[in-house]
Amino acid sequence: MMEPTQLSLSGERLLAVYEFAGPVELAESRANALRVEQTIEFPADLVPDDDIQNEIIGRIESLQPVGDELARAEVSYAVETTGSELPQLLNVLMGNSGLLPGIRLIDFTLPASLSERLVGPRFGVAGLRKMFDAPTRPLLSTALKPMGLSAERLAETAFDLAVGGIDMIKDDHSLADQPFARFAERVARCADAVRRANDQTGLNTIYMPSINAPYDLLGQRVHIALEAGVGGLLVLPGITGFDHMRALAADDDVAIPIMGHPAFLGAFSASPTTGIAHRPLYGTLMRLAGADLSIFPNFGGRFSFSPKECRDIAEGLCEPIAGVFAALPAPGGGMTLDRVPEIKDFYGSDVALLVGGDLHRGESLVQSAAAFREAVES
Amino acid sequence: MMEPTQLSLSGERLLAVYEFAGPVELAESRANALRVEQTIEFPADLVPDDDIQNEIIGRIESLQPVGDELARAEVSYAVETTGSELPQLLNVLMGNSGLLPGIRLIDFTLPASLSERLVGPRFGVAGLRKMFDAPTRPLLSTALKPMGLSAERLAETAFDLAVGGIDMIKDDHSLADQPFARFAERVARCADAVRRANDQTGLNTIYMPSINAPYDLLGQRVHIALEAGVGGLLVLPGITGFDHMRALAADDDVAIPIMGHPAFLGAFSASPTTGIAHRPLYGTLMRLAGADLSIFPNFGGRFSFSPKECRDIAEGLCEPIAGVFAALPAPGGGMTLDRVPEIKDFYGSDVALLVGGDLHRGESLVQSAAAFREAVES
Repeated sequence: MMEPTQLSLSGERLLAVYEFAGPVELAESRANALRVEQTIEFPADLVPDDDIQNEIIGRIESLQPVGDELARAEVSYAVETTGSELPQLLNVLMGNSGLLPGIRLIDFTLPASLSERLVGPRFGVAGLRKMFDAPTRPLLSTALKPMGLSAERLAETAFDLAVGGIDMIKDDHSLADQPFARFAERVARCADAVRRANDQTGLNTIYMPSINAPYDLLGQRVHIALEAGVGGLLVLPGITGFDHMRALAADDDVAIPIMGHPAFLGAFSASPTTGIAHRPLYGTLMRLAGADLSIFPNFGGRFSFSPKECRDIAEGLCEPIAGVFAALPAPGGGMTLDRVPEIKDFYGSDVALLVGGDLHRGESLVQSAAAFREAVES
Repeated sequence: MMEPTQLSLSGERLLAVYEFAGPVELAESRANALRVEQTIEFPADLVPDDDIQNEIIGRIESLQPVGDELARAEVSYAVETTGSELPQLLNVLMGNSGLLPGIRLIDFTLPASLSERLVGPRFGVAGLRKMFDAPTRPLLSTALKPMGLSAERLAETAFDLAVGGIDMIKDDHSLADQPFARFAERVARCADAVRRANDQTGLNTIYMPSINAPYDLLGQRVHIALEAGVGGLLVLPGITGFDHMRALAADDDVAIPIMGHPAFLGAFSASPTTGIAHRPLYGTLMRLAGADLSIFPNFGGRFSFSPKECRDIAEGLCEPIAGVFAALPAPGGGMTLDRVPEIKDFYGSDVALLVGGDLHRGESLVQSAAAFREAVES
């Protein structure tokens, strides 16, 4: 056996907060198992090196019961365990422990050296406000749908919505490269439609196509979108990976706003005792991974997020993080025009309202979109 | 408004089976909401086109109570909704409905046209057996750990394990590009160590480095690994994306076995009433996405999978799927040498036993690895 490794560590640590559902008297042993599982995944008693024992294995900073059947532990990890890379950060936070029952990640904070390296959103709230010449008002967004329409009809829809004054018109997240509306044709037509509308209105509406593509075509789809002159991108990090979104946000050749969509992430938050809570998932992670806007289902729509969970997400998107711009919450999921005042009241002005299908209820899309804008501006 | 779209569809459909936890009298309306949510995500009453109403929105093929508080629905989707791409297939299966409470995907089957296009594992069970000259016996695998060791010491470990006769020596999934053991140095040293061991033993042990890298470095890490002459890859599709793994499996320039690791996927299966069940997740999806071997925590180890859940996974890995080879289950997660006979009894010979830390308990790694091999072969 060689000499024990002498580790030269910065001393900087990230902090993760976990909840353990189940008998609180077991929480300490479960937290001890977790701090090993998330790092060395090896029998702790067999580790020969003091430095690995003391510095690499996670450290329980606090542990306390929250009730009879719930305990909360703060666990810190040496920042070096992440290799300063987002994929391995996800692994340290929740890689294997998600496989254990009754463990939920409810918060995490990074040292400045790591958050600054990840960068986060390129535009953030201030950048988006400048882009849409909207210093104080909430922003407006909607989706092109339904799947099955031709590229031509989707573009016609995009034109009407842009004439009505929506800021951001995204693809429905289910639009990929289906035969009904192939990606390249759809993106070219929709980008062109929004450009024509902007010429008419003088606004700066942007079209954001969905980049949910096979791994080996991701770069090509982004290239096609940029060539078509789109103004932003819709990204599904639950499917293409959080680091795919981060890389897009960090890419100077892309340099347009990114909207993060929660598709395939719901299982993380769906059970209150497993997975990852709303704030760190749809808030902190989305933002660290470069989303200028984070879409999530607002309370009272088709989904089941509570007002508190929505508030938590919005806070995660704007709390101070060193070197990382604040991002905008984009609550959607069955929102209707009549709820605009309530949503504004709840989130304040730092919000991008997302109304989709409801805009199609009126006589004309242009009128519905204009009514949406008026409701937001009033 | 233009003419309604005339869709020209193949008639081929994929079938997904969902469970709805909660009052069975609500199941029908929930299933109706789901079939819309997973496709057009649009008020169904506003869809102008008959073809979209009839062909694009999912179709409930059956719906029945499983108990007072559980119902099961079979929902079929036109294969065209997936665009024949894995990322959009994930979206159709569970994109948004994971955000709804109490919905679990418990099975799915694809039409041959889609499974054949996805390809799946390059080697599969038969290919792995040929590679290791092991026509009937279970295969052996282990992991290099703990994080914190230098590349030199990890390579020394790899050498000993290979001399002892392990077939597949993978990186621990937590090894990325940390300062303790940089990826390039680690991979070069470990690949070399395993080559030297093979020269000594005449075996064909392979080293499988973990490709858990930032999106923009994934290709580079694979290239480094191939240049170093590694014999396989460890991939974490929960982090880098299922389609990243599929693309690696389909890449003729890679053409080495892939082991899929469940990191960051646990939240999908952790709650029995949300997410994705064990069989479709660690079985069918891992396999369709190209894993020759699917790692999961065996029952009775550090984790909580039940014997039935493990059996389900193994079945998902070998049930007939058109154009897709069977993959091997690789149950691990705290397995010990004394459990080898039991694991062989449970899974039969089509299994890759994964024993990690326990091999470090004996006097010598070579002896422990040899004992592991002997236990498997006996």
